[in-house]
Amino acid sequence: MKGFFSLISSSKFSEFFDRFSEIDSETVPLTSALGRFLATDIISPEKLPPFSRSTMDGFVVRARDTFGCSKSEPALLTVVGEINMGDSGQDISLGPGQTAVIWTGGELAGKGDAVVMVENTSRLDNETIEVLKAVAPGENVIRAGEDFAQDDVVLRKGRRLRAQDLGVLAGLGITAVSAFKKPLIGIISIGDELVAPDEKLTAGKIRDINATTLTALVHDAGGIPLPLGIIGDDFDTMLTACKEAIDQPVDMLLLSGGSSAGKRDFTLSVFKKLSDSDLLAHGVAIRPAKPAILTQKGNCALFGLPGHVASAMLVFYLFVRPLIRTFCGAKNTGLRRITAITGQQIPSTIGREEYVRVRLEQDEDNLEPVAHPVYGKSGLLNPLMTADGLLKVGRDSEGLDKGKQAEVLLFP
Amino acid sequence: MKGFFSLISSSKFSEFFDRFSEIDSETVPLTSALGRFLATDIISPEKLPPFSRSTMDGFVVRARDTFGCSKSEPALLTVVGEINMGDSGQDISLGPGQTAVIWTGGELAGKGDAVVMVENTSRLDNETIEVLKAVAPGENVIRAGEDFAQDDVVLRKGRRLRAQDLGVLAGLGITAVSAFKKPLIGIISIGDELVAPDEKLTAGKIRDINATTLTALVHDAGGIPLPLGIIGDDFDTMLTACKEAIDQPVDMLLLSGGSSAGKRDFTLSVFKKLSDSDLLAHGVAIRPAKPAILTQKGNCALFGLPGHVASAMLVFYLFVRPLIRTFCGAKNTGLRRITAITGQQIPSTIGREEYVRVRLEQDEDNLEPVAHPVYGKSGLLNPLMTADGLLKVGRDSEGLDKGKQAEVLLFP
Repeated sequence: MKGFFSLISSSKFSEFFDRFSEIDSETVPLTSALGRFLATDIISPEKLPPFSRSTMDGFVVRARDTFGCSKSEPALLTVVGEINMGDSGQDISLGPGQTAVIWTGGELAGKGDAVVMVENTSRLDNETIEVLKAVAPGENVIRAGEDFAQDDVVLRKGRRLRAQDLGVLAGLGITAVSAFKKPLIGIISIGDELVAPDEKLTAGKIRDINATTLTALVHDAGGIPLPLGIIGDDFDTMLTACKEAIDQPVDMLLLSGGSSAGKRDFTLSVFKKLSDSDLLAHGVAIRPAKPAILTQKGNCALFGLPGHVASAMLVFYLFVRPLIRTFCGAKNTGLRRITAITGQQIPSTIGREEYVRVRLEQDEDNLEPVAHPVYGKSGLLNPLMTADGLLKVGRDSEGLDKGKQAEVLLFP
Repeated sequence: MKGFFSLISSSKFSEFFDRFSEIDSETVPLTSALGRFLATDIISPEKLPPFSRSTMDGFVVRARDTFGCSKSEPALLTVVGEINMGDSGQDISLGPGQTAVIWTGGELAGKGDAVVMVENTSRLDNETIEVLKAVAPGENVIRAGEDFAQDDVVLRKGRRLRAQDLGVLAGLGITAVSAFKKPLIGIISIGDELVAPDEKLTAGKIRDINATTLTALVHDAGGIPLPLGIIGDDFDTMLTACKEAIDQPVDMLLLSGGSSAGKRDFTLSVFKKLSDSDLLAHGVAIRPAKPAILTQKGNCALFGLPGHVASAMLVFYLFVRPLIRTFCGAKNTGLRRITAITGQQIPSTIGREEYVRVRLEQDEDNLEPVAHPVYGKSGLLNPLMTADGLLKVGRDSEGLDKGKQAEVLLFP
C-alpha cells in the first residue's frame, strides 16, 4: 500500500497525445473504406458532374428565349427533339426559339442554358410548346463541375469516411483510397484471480470481463484488437509480456488491473522498468477512474487501466479511443456529446471531473432527453448495462440541480 | 409524366413495418457479436459475482466486532491471515475478534461480512490492528449474486449488443449467443445514364453513386449489402432483376432511381406486376424525398428510393434502417437524436416534414451545438459531405426562428 497518486487534469492528460505520431497508411478499396481515416487529401481527378445537367423533368431552353414571358403572354418554342437519359445532350444544338425534352439528370442540349419545368409549359402540338414562366440562365441546372472542379480538394486527410463520402468518391471514379492502417492494440488482463470466460470457475476465481469489453471497444474505435490473455500478479511475467507485445510491434498496449496503489499493483513498476520509456502520467483527476497510467516507448503508448470494467471503460473513452484516432490523423476524436436535462439532483466533488452513468428517457414535453443517474456500488456491472452514457460534472462544480441542462457522452 | 402521388405521413409509413416478421436467428460467438441483435432473452446460468467480494483494499471483519468503535475508542482485532487474490477466502474462518487482510476483488473470509478500508485502520503489531471506524454488515462488499442471481434475465431479446454487454456475458461464462441473422439487402441502381464507378465515362453518362452509398448504409445499419448492379430504364429487365433478387431470397430490395412520376419511372409498375405483392405506400409527406415506394411480397420489403442520393439517404434513414432493425427484433430503431440551436432562420412548408441538412458547431457559450443549414441546389452532393445531420421541421410548422431549440438526427 505504497505511494500516492499525483493527479493531473483530463485535459493535461490529453495534451500528451501530441507526443505520438500518425502511423503508416495503406491502400484500401472503397468497398471496405467505411469508417476508415484518410491518410491524404483527396483531389478530384475530374469534374463532377461531368456535364451540365437538368434538375427537373421539362424542356431545355436558351434562357433569353423565355425572357418576359408569362401565362398571359407565353413564349412559343419549337421542340426539336428529346434527350433520353444516357444520351449526349450535345447531339442536339438549340437554335433561337428551339427547345428539347429533357429529364431530371439529363445533359443539357448544345447552346441550352436553362430548363423550364414541365409544370410551367403547355403543349400546343407535337412540335410546339408554350412557356408560361421565364427562366434565368442556369435555372434548374447543375453546371458541369459545380460540385467539384478538377483538382479541387474533395476530402481532407484525417477524415473518417462516411457513407455519403464513399458515394461521392465513387461518383468521381475513385475506387480506392490511402487510409491510415488500423492501429494494433494489445490487450492484457492482470490478476491472479482471473480465468478466461470459457474456463471452469474454481474457488476464489472470477472470469475475465475486461478483455472481452476492451476488444469490442477497440474494434468500435477503429483499431485492431490483439487479445494477449490473462497474466497473474507477477512482475517478471508482466514485464516479459509487455516486452513481447512491444516487439510485435503493437501501436498501443492496454493493461487492465494492477494500476491502483495496492500492494499487488505492478503495472507502474513494470512500465518504469522498460528501457527508453517515458512515464507521462500516473493518476488523473476524474472519477471513477483516477489510477490511469500512460507511458510512451517510441511511438507505442502503454496504458495502465483500472481493474474494474466501468473505470477501465471511462479511461478508454476519454483517452484510449482519442489516441487511437490521433494515430489515424483525426481531429475530432471524442465520444458523441449531447445535452440532456437532469432528472434529479446530482452531487459531485470539487477538484475532480465526475462521470455519472445515466439512462436517457425521452418525454413528450421536451426535445431534450431526461438523464437519470444509474447509481450502484462501484464494483457492480448491472448499472453499466442500463446506462446510455456518461453525464459529465465539471471539476469546479459541487453538482447539478434537478432540471438543469447537462452534457452527456453517449456510449457508442 | 403521368399520375400524382398520394402522400402519407412518415409515421403512417412506419406503421406498415408491423406487417413484417422477425427473421431467422443463428449462433454467434461473443467475439463477433458486437452490434448484433439478440434473438432470445439471455438467462444467467450462474450467479455473478460467484462469491462475496471486497470493493476495497483493507481488512475483512465480522461487522459486529467493530460496532461503536471510533478513533478515540478503536476496536482491536487479531490478524489471522491474508487472502491473496485468486485464493478462496473460505480457507480462513473468522472467529470473534479476528480479521484477515483482503484486496479489492478478493473473496471474503468465512464468517466475514464487511470490509474495513485500510485507511480506517492502524497496525499495532504483526498480529493486531486498530479499527478506527465501524462498518455495517455488507459495507464495502458486493454480495455473491448481487449483480445477477442464477436464472435472472440479463439482457432482453432485440437488444443491440454493446461492448459492456459482451463483457458481462463473458463474466457469466457465456461465450456465444443466439442473434438475429443480418438481413440480406439487395441493391439495384436504375438508369440508362449510369455506369459503374470503375468504368470509363462517355458522353451523357455519369457514375453510379447510390450503390456505393447504400452499400455502406446497409452495412452500418446491421444488414448484409448485396449489390446487384446497374439496370437501364427498361421494364422487363427491371422485373426480371426484381424476381431474381426475391428468389435469392433477399430480405429487402432497394431500387434507387425510377420512383418519381417521370415518363421513364418504371419502379411502381414493376412492383405492381409482382404476383402476391401489396403496394403499401407510394409517396410520403417529407422533403426532400417524397417519391418513396414500399411494397411487400411475403416477408420481403421492396423499396423504391428516389434517384438523388440525398433523398435516397433520407428515405434510408427514416424507413429502411428502422425496418432492417425491425427484422432483428429491435425496438429503438432510429438515428441518434440530439438537440441543437438554430444558427439562422429556417423556413419550411406546412404539410410536409422537412429535413434540412445542417453542420453543427460547438461554441464556448452553450452546451448545445449551433446548427447551420447547408443549403444547395437539390442535385448537389457537396452539401451532403459538409453536413453532420438533418434538422427536422415538423409538418405543422412554417419554419424555425434563429436561436430556437431544434431536433437534429445525426448521421452515423
